[in-house]
Amino acid sequence: MKSHTEYLTFATKQQREFLNITDQVDAILRRSGIREGMVLVSAMHITAAVYVNDAEDGLIQDISEWLNNVAPARPDYKHHRTGETNGDAHLKSLLLHHEVIIPVTAGKLDFGPWQQVYYAEFDGQRRKRVVVKILGE
Amino acid sequence: MKSHTEYLTFATKQQREFLNITDQVDAILRRSGIREGMVLVSAMHITAAVYVNDAEDGLIQDISEWLNNVAPARPDYKHHRTGETNGDAHLKSLLLHHEVIIPVTAGKLDFGPWQQVYYAEFDGQRRKRVVVKILGE
Amino acid sequence: MKSHTEYLTFATKQQREFLNITDQVDAILRRSGIREGMVLVSAMHITAAVYVNDAEDGLIQDISEWLNNVAPARPDYKHHRTGETNGDAHLKSLLLHHEVIIPVTAGKLDFGPWQQVYYAEFDGQRRKRVVVKILGE
Repeated sequence: MKSHTEYLTFATKQQREFLNITDQVDAILRRSGIREGMVLVSAMHITAAVYVNDAEDGLIQDISEWLNNVAPARPDYKHHRTGETNGDAHLKSLLLHHEVIIPVTAGKLDFGPWQQVYYAEFDGQRRKRVVVKILGE
Repeated sequence: MKSHTEYLTFATKQQREFLNITDQVDAILRRSGIREGMVLVSAMHITAAVYVNDAEDGLIQDISEWLNNVAPARPDYKHHRTGETNGDAHLKSLLLHHEVIIPVTAGKLDFGPWQQVYYAEFDGQRRKRVVVKILGE
Repeated sequence: MKSHTEYLTFATKQQREFLNITDQVDAILRRSGIREGMVLVSAMHITAAVYVNDAEDGLIQDISEWLNNVAPARPDYKHHRTGETNGDAHLKSLLLHHEVIIPVTAGKLDFGPWQQVYYAEFDGQRRKRVVVKILGE
């Protein structure tokens, strides 16, 4: 069994951004030399998410608005008693989930035709990390 | 380390359907010969989900209605500017998540008493695939 | 490749509780001797969840209230025709997801600074289990 680990670092300009990281994950897979296995792509922060869906700008706006509806920014989260103001970012992270596992087959991300992997930042403008870990052979 | 990969194909009659695929995943596990490891069951499309829960018809109706409440069909999704009409199917896919990892112990899916694995289709009536990948030994 | 499997058992005093299980998962990892790999932490029941987020009491109350808003307790779930009264617990389990995968690097849970793993019980006061399975070497 081989394992290969790299870290991606982001510091988004906006508080909320959606970044397509498929090419970066793919480049890590190629560097690993692993042909059969699984890639874990996992946010290392609790106010961000990693998900797989379509690279279509309208849909990304829909996802962003939907997250705001289901997990809205509000002043009265109890978490804000700590001085934080990002309660909604935690809930958005839980709603989208903070990690995905992608199958690796014949040296490639074994995705369907429209699948892309995204990093969703909900409390950015500072340095944050994603771990990419590949197990296989 | 061994790996084993198979693909399931579905073409549901309804636009939205919930299919219990536990037996199919179990059959793939037996064909793999893997006794200790993990099974990844992952939809290859961005308008479907894979989840683990109970095989109870009333509950499945509750899940379907809940998905319609939290991620409703609406005419005004921005994704629809592309000509698509399935914006809600993308959001339902994100809400339920597109993949699960199931532990394999002593050659069996290491499930609790009521756990079953489901494929949830939100934009069917055409050919769609699920990848089942097992790592272990 | 090595694999290591243990089970955690909970019987919460309240119907709904959030338990920080990071130390227990970490102890299992140390017993496994695995230095590079992945840990699967997965609820074996369909009315509980496992998630990764912050160990801050106010936030945990926010998460609990948010779950009650998005997946409310209601008398009229169709699942209740079976005699059950826990329809909302199934939906809360689906919303938070029943499992996480945690990377293992250099013998440690490869978490960011605030990440902790939680067991969320939505229908407790009875014996329930979580499987912890580690693959790696």
